[in-house]
Amino acid sequence: MTAFDPGFSTAAMTRTFSAESRVQAMCRFEAALAGAAADAGLIGGEVAAEIEQVCAVPTDDAGALLAAGWEAGTPVVVLLERLRAQLSPEGARMLHHGATTQDVVDSALMTQIREGLEVLDEGIVSVLAALRSLVIEHRETPMMGRTFLQQAQPTTFGLRVALWLEPLVRQLAELRASGPNLPVQLGGAVGNQATLGEHALAVTAGVAERLGLAVPVVPWHTDRSRLAEVVALVTRVAASAAKIGTDVAQLSQDEVGELQTRPGASSSMPGKRNPIDAIRAIAASRVCGAMAQIVTAAPPHELERGIGSWHAEWFAVPVVFQTAAAAIEAVGASVESIEVDASRMAANVGAAAEPEVLAAAGSLVDRVLEAADALLGED
Amino acid sequence: MTAFDPGFSTAAMTRTFSAESRVQAMCRFEAALAGAAADAGLIGGEVAAEIEQVCAVPTDDAGALLAAGWEAGTPVVVLLERLRAQLSPEGARMLHHGATTQDVVDSALMTQIREGLEVLDEGIVSVLAALRSLVIEHRETPMMGRTFLQQAQPTTFGLRVALWLEPLVRQLAELRASGPNLPVQLGGAVGNQATLGEHALAVTAGVAERLGLAVPVVPWHTDRSRLAEVVALVTRVAASAAKIGTDVAQLSQDEVGELQTRPGASSSMPGKRNPIDAIRAIAASRVCGAMAQIVTAAPPHELERGIGSWHAEWFAVPVVFQTAAAAIEAVGASVESIEVDASRMAANVGAAAEPEVLAAAGSLVDRVLEAADALLGED
Amino acid sequence: MTAFDPGFSTAAMTRTFSAESRVQAMCRFEAALAGAAADAGLIGGEVAAEIEQVCAVPTDDAGALLAAGWEAGTPVVVLLERLRAQLSPEGARMLHHGATTQDVVDSALMTQIREGLEVLDEGIVSVLAALRSLVIEHRETPMMGRTFLQQAQPTTFGLRVALWLEPLVRQLAELRASGPNLPVQLGGAVGNQATLGEHALAVTAGVAERLGLAVPVVPWHTDRSRLAEVVALVTRVAASAAKIGTDVAQLSQDEVGELQTRPGASSSMPGKRNPIDAIRAIAASRVCGAMAQIVTAAPPHELERGIGSWHAEWFAVPVVFQTAAAAIEAVGASVESIEVDASRMAANVGAAAEPEVLAAAGSLVDRVLEAADALLGED
Amino acid sequence: MTAFDPGFSTAAMTRTFSAESRVQAMCRFEAALAGAAADAGLIGGEVAAEIEQVCAVPTDDAGALLAAGWEAGTPVVVLLERLRAQLSPEGARMLHHGATTQDVVDSALMTQIREGLEVLDEGIVSVLAALRSLVIEHRETPMMGRTFLQQAQPTTFGLRVALWLEPLVRQLAELRASGPNLPVQLGGAVGNQATLGEHALAVTAGVAERLGLAVPVVPWHTDRSRLAEVVALVTRVAASAAKIGTDVAQLSQDEVGELQTRPGASSSMPGKRNPIDAIRAIAASRVCGAMAQIVTAAPPHELERGIGSWHAEWFAVPVVFQTAAAAIEAVGASVESIEVDASRMAANVGAAAEPEVLAAAGSLVDRVLEAADALLGED
Repeated sequence: MTAFDPGFSTAAMTRTFSAESRVQAMCRFEAALAGAAADAGLIGGEVAAEIEQVCAVPTDDAGALLAAGWEAGTPVVVLLERLRAQLSPEGARMLHHGATTQDVVDSALMTQIREGLEVLDEGIVSVLAALRSLVIEHRETPMMGRTFLQQAQPTTFGLRVALWLEPLVRQLAELRASGPNLPVQLGGAVGNQATLGEHALAVTAGVAERLGLAVPVVPWHTDRSRLAEVVALVTRVAASAAKIGTDVAQLSQDEVGELQTRPGASSSMPGKRNPIDAIRAIAASRVCGAMAQIVTAAPPHELERGIGSWHAEWFAVPVVFQTAAAAIEAVGASVESIEVDASRMAANVGAAAEPEVLAAAGSLVDRVLEAADALLGED
Repeated sequence: MTAFDPGFSTAAMTRTFSAESRVQAMCRFEAALAGAAADAGLIGGEVAAEIEQVCAVPTDDAGALLAAGWEAGTPVVVLLERLRAQLSPEGARMLHHGATTQDVVDSALMTQIREGLEVLDEGIVSVLAALRSLVIEHRETPMMGRTFLQQAQPTTFGLRVALWLEPLVRQLAELRASGPNLPVQLGGAVGNQATLGEHALAVTAGVAERLGLAVPVVPWHTDRSRLAEVVALVTRVAASAAKIGTDVAQLSQDEVGELQTRPGASSSMPGKRNPIDAIRAIAASRVCGAMAQIVTAAPPHELERGIGSWHAEWFAVPVVFQTAAAAIEAVGASVESIEVDASRMAANVGAAAEPEVLAAAGSLVDRVLEAADALLGED
Repeated sequence: MTAFDPGFSTAAMTRTFSAESRVQAMCRFEAALAGAAADAGLIGGEVAAEIEQVCAVPTDDAGALLAAGWEAGTPVVVLLERLRAQLSPEGARMLHHGATTQDVVDSALMTQIREGLEVLDEGIVSVLAALRSLVIEHRETPMMGRTFLQQAQPTTFGLRVALWLEPLVRQLAELRASGPNLPVQLGGAVGNQATLGEHALAVTAGVAERLGLAVPVVPWHTDRSRLAEVVALVTRVAASAAKIGTDVAQLSQDEVGELQTRPGASSSMPGKRNPIDAIRAIAASRVCGAMAQIVTAAPPHELERGIGSWHAEWFAVPVVFQTAAAAIEAVGASVESIEVDASRMAANVGAAAEPEVLAAAGSLVDRVLEAADALLGED
Repeated sequence: MTAFDPGFSTAAMTRTFSAESRVQAMCRFEAALAGAAADAGLIGGEVAAEIEQVCAVPTDDAGALLAAGWEAGTPVVVLLERLRAQLSPEGARMLHHGATTQDVVDSALMTQIREGLEVLDEGIVSVLAALRSLVIEHRETPMMGRTFLQQAQPTTFGLRVALWLEPLVRQLAELRASGPNLPVQLGGAVGNQATLGEHALAVTAGVAERLGLAVPVVPWHTDRSRLAEVVALVTRVAASAAKIGTDVAQLSQDEVGELQTRPGASSSMPGKRNPIDAIRAIAASRVCGAMAQIVTAAPPHELERGIGSWHAEWFAVPVVFQTAAAAIEAVGASVESIEVDASRMAANVGAAAEPEVLAAAGSLVDRVLEAADALLGED
């Protein structure tokens, strides 16, 4: 939407939250609902097959369809009209049976989030690999530890990198645990599943299974805490990227001189080595954290559907995922291009590092590598 | 960038902060710099004319150019390369003379902001007109005043609308006062204008005049407080829109029944009258407020250029303006479609409203209309 | 610190994060460190006993001690001086062996957080009990479901309350799972445990056990993600309280008239029934969410100890816990005082509610009660 | 309220927003209202005199009184009861005539804010004096300019300090312009001044004059934009302090070595020179920015009084002022203790700085000093 968007997303995550993906996810929901309803005997199998077929056809003007949703008041009404025009009268009548706009929008969002978690997963795995190599290579490279930006006592660069790595390992494990728990939303007009009657739970389970989502205890139309949970997790990933970026920038100062990374250009000083990827990671992470509040510190959604807080999520959640992906991509580029100046590190330490430091740091490094390998498998 | 962007911007504000506008604004800066430098005798008049001419040619792949800027580390380097390829050796040499990336980016942003303020101005004027009509029509329409959502004592709908209107009048005046004070940025590599020498102030003034910006006391490359000021003002505009939207939604409840607005559709309940424009105004305003923090509550920009905080603004400022414009557009649609049920208002008041209430409220209404007319001129 | 603090905390949570608790927690850390070091053979058993004894003496001017810490630059230096004055030379020398200020401050914080989680737990259990009674009593009380504040379709008040209850049950389970995972911090000057040598892990485990904390893979001095995680969880609890408060206020409107709660007084309208506890819950939750960002959307802590981001947590984390406790306390008072006007609910529904609605809602209610009972045990 | 509060406020600002100040400010409002009502002939002069006298008596249990307000639902009801017990029946009847709780609370807040601005003013003036001396002393001290933390081109330390100083000069001017525009709030039960009848404007003006506040166009009970404006301004002051603190910390790194400030102690490394005052400034500023959102990015206040958003301000506004004061106090201590290592600065520049740099920087320095002197007067 704005001039600098490309820096605040990645190609894969832009696709994940594109209008096309969104419309497709909404169609998948309607198809899954029809299939599950047929399994429960609520609608005929042929009707379901017809709905599934129509919903499988890609939309070629997804952006326009969703834009029209703002005029209509809901994107789902516009989509349903479109689908119904292609259906038999019975198909048109049974499409969306038992559901409401929020069911479609929230369930579609959850399937996008699941995909978004996979995109992040790939990105993190790639960063972890780069960090792991650095850890191993620099397990015994002494460097000065700095607190409050002041020189404190010696440590190793291997441990510093391990301390970057460990949170990402933990967060990757959390992402992986989170994916299968993303809940489907199916509540009907006011969230009590009244239209689905005694088949409500079966249909919910059927839709969930088809979409790869979990069955929640109850519809969560105004309980946004599961969404807040996954958004908070994604911001922690972005924060881990920003931490690495910040340290890279600090250690790349000319006066410190311990690291160099792929330099960005300068319009006035051709030889300058700006740590541009680290900077992009920090910037994207900042936006991620600010945007997350729309979900994590939102005013409550009133009664069975809120005035505004819900719609604000439609913008915020994609931005949270996109900026987190950008932060991970950027920090990956930064880490992969790190050149370590071990002699400068040694000079900054001054006297030779004591063996106790190398041993202690090495021992912590081993614990981190072990945790990483337990999650990722060894090389 | 995301599926629901159109609801969080307006056509005009999307244009204002598009890649095309941004590249054009950067070109205008380079042209203005050349012109001002020529006036000061720093470069030849013919060289300046050549630069101005090349910079006036529209770019047809602005999005790609800016995207490439992320790879290069700065969009300006990519733009300069492009421009230099079209210039004589002397033109290429003198292009960007005395400037650095931040000068181009920040000054371009300020010209976009100035345009953005004008777009907002138009939107607000239109909302004010709709509100003014309502105020006049309902100057003596009694309604129940409600505090903490509880019925309190009678007031008038005219005053309620006047209380929506007054802050927007004040904020419009502030927007108009703010526009001419937006400062140009011209500091050179580290913000001391060393390359421009004794001509620094003259060149700064020349660039400012050409771009319609103000001359700051000093370059403001790491003082973001003027930017924070205008961003905070824009969020106040969005908050005023959200206030109206919230009250419209509250008064449109079936049980209250005092207002109705253009209804949105419902995918499960065809007859329902969702106050969809009010909802969009609230949602857009929420995003505006959260995004504004990137500027108003930012970590400082380190020394002469920050690692990340600056780049985060590139995303945040456009979103702040776009969501504010969306909030104003949406609330305008909501207000213009208001249908007042005066008899329901009277019924909710219960006994006939006392004349003192009408008089007191009317007197406040007059003060508001007077303030509005002082700014906008009378009909 | 400010005039209205009491509304934004509870007595118990104010104690948990008081200066006295903090100093006591820091002393407990030093005692635990001495004990664990003695177990590992790093210091003598008698020295450890002496340290433990001195650390067990309550401080009577904790506030002054911590205030002096701001002048000194760290509260720990002031505390150590105080303790050393009471110790033998050997005790003084071995006190704080292997630790640094951040170890003391972060570990003390974690023990306060663990206690804070217990305080919240009690509050939530009490709210859950009140909600559970309402759910059971109103399992078949029909009410109108409202979306976007508009009447939509009938549901039951029992289900509405169950939808308030379910997230709190889940969050309580999360709180309980979170407590035992709160990590001790023990890294020494730069986080590599060099002073503790080969005994590092044993000492860490010993300190953790004594303080009731977990052993992390590595010191987490600049990885704030575990802290962010628990803070985010606590804000979700506060948000659940605000959700209830918001709905109570909406349903207590005179025009809706379905609920009444303990009324607050009015200085100008004696008979008014302001839902003051609901309001306090919403207000406290808002502050909680805003303050949480200091941890969840913080700029990174630079290298081995950050300039500012760490200290900001010292203020923010206690406020997050205190406002969450206030929100829970206030919403408890609100819920306990709820008077339901079932006939008004029925009137707002209009026609008699269909049996399908009662059945569907009842079935969801049962699922929620089952989940609650699984966590809390049945009556 | 929490263990580390003293670092996040100053003695003067803690007093300004104490319970005692708050109760006194509320009493002053009631006295001013009585006086103005008497002037307008609404109540007798003797009754007003009696009210003024009773309101002038200091309260010795302000904290308990305000705490009781949470139980009652409003602090004003508790205060009025207390005052009425000391008044004649007629005095008791006319006390608070025409006002409501929000009038008292908001007007009292505005008088505290006015005082808070004065406290900040003093703090800023003191910082400006310290900065001004540094600017003059180091007008020609060459130092390396750094962008993205990378060495860029030479500049002067005098200009760097001038760039710290200039925003504070501007913000001080804004604070001073802001003070006289802080509006009184007087609207009565629903904000229409009905009880005051034709005397409403006169009474408003009388109260405003007595309290040193401005007369707004209309009551602003649900338009929080003026409050948001002053809060945003105060956060800009805090951000200016954090900018200085950040640069001080960066320049104090051992490897850069250009500045030293009052060192904080270290519990593990006695000789370390932690820039503790800079750190406190950054931390306090962070909390300030996060807390400000409660006002600047608040959900709207519904109709004539909001459910929660208003009460949240009661906590947030004092914290915003206190943390800003802390940031200014801390950065003042930091700046006053700066020791410049000019030879290290020269060494970091490398070759001798070119005269053009000194001239250009000096010229900007002069513009800043001129602006400062225009506001503050010359020495």
